[in-house]
Amino acid sequence: DKPMVVFGGMNVLESRDLALRIAEHYVTVTEKLNIPYVFKASFDKANRSSLTSFRGPGLDEGLKILEEIKKTFNVPLITDIHEPHQAAAAAEVCDIIQLPAFLSRQTDLVKAMAETGAVINIKKAQFLAPHEMKHILHKCEEAGNDRLILCERGTAFGYNNLVVDMLGFSIMKEFGYPIMFDATHALQVPGGRSDSAGGRRGLAAQLARAGISQGIAGLFLEAHPNPAEAKCDGPCALPLDKLEPYLAQLKAVDELVKSFAPLQTD
Amino acid sequence: DKPMVVFGGMNVLESRDLALRIAEHYVTVTEKLNIPYVFKASFDKANRSSLTSFRGPGLDEGLKILEEIKKTFNVPLITDIHEPHQAAAAAEVCDIIQLPAFLSRQTDLVKAMAETGAVINIKKAQFLAPHEMKHILHKCEEAGNDRLILCERGTAFGYNNLVVDMLGFSIMKEFGYPIMFDATHALQVPGGRSDSAGGRRGLAAQLARAGISQGIAGLFLEAHPNPAEAKCDGPCALPLDKLEPYLAQLKAVDELVKSFAPLQTD
Amino acid sequence: DKPMVVFGGMNVLESRDLALRIAEHYVTVTEKLNIPYVFKASFDKANRSSLTSFRGPGLDEGLKILEEIKKTFNVPLITDIHEPHQAAAAAEVCDIIQLPAFLSRQTDLVKAMAETGAVINIKKAQFLAPHEMKHILHKCEEAGNDRLILCERGTAFGYNNLVVDMLGFSIMKEFGYPIMFDATHALQVPGGRSDSAGGRRGLAAQLARAGISQGIAGLFLEAHPNPAEAKCDGPCALPLDKLEPYLAQLKAVDELVKSFAPLQTD
Amino acid sequence: DKPMVVFGGMNVLESRDLALRIAEHYVTVTEKLNIPYVFKASFDKANRSSLTSFRGPGLDEGLKILEEIKKTFNVPLITDIHEPHQAAAAAEVCDIIQLPAFLSRQTDLVKAMAETGAVINIKKAQFLAPHEMKHILHKCEEAGNDRLILCERGTAFGYNNLVVDMLGFSIMKEFGYPIMFDATHALQVPGGRSDSAGGRRGLAAQLARAGISQGIAGLFLEAHPNPAEAKCDGPCALPLDKLEPYLAQLKAVDELVKSFAPLQTD
Repeated sequence: DKPMVVFGGMNVLESRDLALRIAEHYVTVTEKLNIPYVFKASFDKANRSSLTSFRGPGLDEGLKILEEIKKTFNVPLITDIHEPHQAAAAAEVCDIIQLPAFLSRQTDLVKAMAETGAVINIKKAQFLAPHEMKHILHKCEEAGNDRLILCERGTAFGYNNLVVDMLGFSIMKEFGYPIMFDATHALQVPGGRSDSAGGRRGLAAQLARAGISQGIAGLFLEAHPNPAEAKCDGPCALPLDKLEPYLAQLKAVDELVKSFAPLQTD
Repeated sequence: DKPMVVFGGMNVLESRDLALRIAEHYVTVTEKLNIPYVFKASFDKANRSSLTSFRGPGLDEGLKILEEIKKTFNVPLITDIHEPHQAAAAAEVCDIIQLPAFLSRQTDLVKAMAETGAVINIKKAQFLAPHEMKHILHKCEEAGNDRLILCERGTAFGYNNLVVDMLGFSIMKEFGYPIMFDATHALQVPGGRSDSAGGRRGLAAQLARAGISQGIAGLFLEAHPNPAEAKCDGPCALPLDKLEPYLAQLKAVDELVKSFAPLQTD
Repeated sequence: DKPMVVFGGMNVLESRDLALRIAEHYVTVTEKLNIPYVFKASFDKANRSSLTSFRGPGLDEGLKILEEIKKTFNVPLITDIHEPHQAAAAAEVCDIIQLPAFLSRQTDLVKAMAETGAVINIKKAQFLAPHEMKHILHKCEEAGNDRLILCERGTAFGYNNLVVDMLGFSIMKEFGYPIMFDATHALQVPGGRSDSAGGRRGLAAQLARAGISQGIAGLFLEAHPNPAEAKCDGPCALPLDKLEPYLAQLKAVDELVKSFAPLQTD
Repeated sequence: DKPMVVFGGMNVLESRDLALRIAEHYVTVTEKLNIPYVFKASFDKANRSSLTSFRGPGLDEGLKILEEIKKTFNVPLITDIHEPHQAAAAAEVCDIIQLPAFLSRQTDLVKAMAETGAVINIKKAQFLAPHEMKHILHKCEEAGNDRLILCERGTAFGYNNLVVDMLGFSIMKEFGYPIMFDATHALQVPGGRSDSAGGRRGLAAQLARAGISQGIAGLFLEAHPNPAEAKCDGPCALPLDKLEPYLAQLKAVDELVKSFAPLQTD
């Protein structure tokens, strides 16, 4: 029941300059609001819809940019990896490494990540039930790592749609690990545009509020100064200039629900 | 953005005495918390899983009990009907009549209800998308009634499960009518017990919180002094003795989210 | 493992003349193909999307047309009803009365239908799992009627889509009653057009084939001489001039799969 | 409209001896039935539920066994890979390499596979709509490979269930590539057992029949002499001694539906 943290940043590292600019804004806002903060960005988007989609700077160049952000702003980092061989390098620079949702069942990747000793943020696959996440936690524990976080990001609901099952947060809390909510990817409309996912960023505040009302560890989000021009997942990205009121509202919801006495209704 | 109202009561009118006892508790709690309140109970459960399931006292006897509750406690009433011929009688006693979810597409029922002039609470069918509710609103308007309320109660998600899509609240708000959340039926596990629906009442507060975080008109709920012995939908019912802390928490969430300045993220 | 029967006809009784013309074509084709045949048409579409949608001639006029068809072509009849009071009249004229999918949980309707002694065709609701249909069968049996048929017509799959779960046929066969497949309504795209359901009639033969491959009692279908102008569910209707090759193919599939020796793979 | 082919074999290479024994049986049966045949087995199960689940002999040892099977029985081979670096080695031994469903969006893997020039069998992800598969086909084409096959294996339907949407076969046929049906994995009940997927092998023949009734390129299946003791996916595996009647039935369905004249119903 500690105050919520924010894993926030941008989707893919479009450029060093943009990354620094976005990080700076997050740092300013989260300091002002007194919210513990971790900067998030991807060095590679490894599962875009098209071969010619923008993927990012790659591991080496990407980690360099992330390291510069860490030094400049003195913030912890999170990034996602896609192959076992990337785990060690990513964990050297980043405090938290992230297991992507589609890959969350890949044993070698899970094992390589666990063995770094870094904190692991496990994205819940769109095809898994909340109670099934225990198997992935278990894999990490068996590999000797119990510094684990589970992150909800929506469940496949028919074709080309995601739904966030609010009951899932309570089910996953039972595992004893912190639960985060990726409140911007959960806005995706998979396959919603001719060659990439669509999104519903106009509902960003509403959906985040519902998740944070569940009394969870924190919020994962991506923002962009100009979502319409973002190189990946712009349709889901929060406009960067709305970050402060967005987080201020969510912090208020978080504080309120964490002030409630436990209410047993069974 | 008025404070939330509560349509609350019991599932089926098990007996006059129990109904009076439950109504009294709701009245006491909602007065203490200063929450506008409407008493809800059904005179007939017309779609139980089994022919021998308890159905209730029927229209005449049921309306008599409801009338007594109205007089005793000076509260408005809501009840659900299932056939066109019941509309007029129900509307004479009740302030709001409710269109059941499974029946929400039945034109004759919708028309008969609309023509009473009573306020209509339209339960969203488990098989309809939020944006499809406009057709049912439209049917009522064409029949000359625009005193309408939409009520979310969960969507079919695979077999034997419901999910509440939080994005649906915002989509339905666009229609311009008040949106309620039936936060206890949405806990159902359809077909979850050998001869009736199961439920997840242990998550009653969590799910209601998520819905109320969306800034909606109010909450619909059912409670029972002994859910394990309730004659219908006990697995979803809030234990009556938890009503006060449950509503106090939700009122706080409602007040908080309605205090927020609008946040445009499109 | 008797040869498949066909419950076939039109959606709503648009006019006496069209009904006779369509019935004649079905009779000619099914006689030629030696397929046991029951004529189907609705006297009222009681759950259209809009109040102004065409509904049909109503009970009295509709039963008159159906009776004329029965006399003219010497075929058994099936029609669907929507309220308990219609059961007796419909059962006097029709050999089979049909319980609509959305209404399949309404106890009074089920009971009234069961008590006529007529054969009942139970449409599986879009929100029920195959194994849950046992409750509805049970209600009929308790009401003294075991002349029952179950009819698959697709399951809600996300918003605005239906899917037919082929495993459901085998699960429902275990109940010991004949299983039919409504192969044209299962093509619906609910809410797919601005004010009514869309459909995928271009896939009519493919979907029917899959269902008939399961070795079931028969096929339910609707056809129209000009689907684009049909007053209801045209997007799902088979073009009437394709009836003969369509049924010839399905009869061949049915005969083939029913010639197979049982194959236990458990 | 060529006769159906079979990609058949076992889940994971449990041992050299078992692989040879299973391959021999497939070869005998498919020769007898005159069905074009490709042997399938995995050298590594890279996404088991648990870290301690059996995974197989690994790439080097696995390819050795596969090569021996190829030489012994003179059959083409298919195997699945999980990381880009495995593509070249697998393609040297196998005629077809398979892209796993969960990994079907991973660009580097798709690209590495495409660049081998081998035929690629693309498993449709449980979280993708049929029409979205065009993006994956496109990625392969852009990487210079158009020797592609799409393979249906079921879609996520609520929690812990898969459904096969028969309409998807027709939608995917429009892409112009051969469509296969993985009729045993589609029987999975994801998360259905405490530490692994359950399955419905008792319905193996029924589900395969529905898929083959769609007039597709062929069937993908896994069998085991003792499914209850299989080291992976036994709950879905066909008992090996049922292979001949199972394939004989499906071949008859395939021949029948491919003999039909095209039937335009749009």
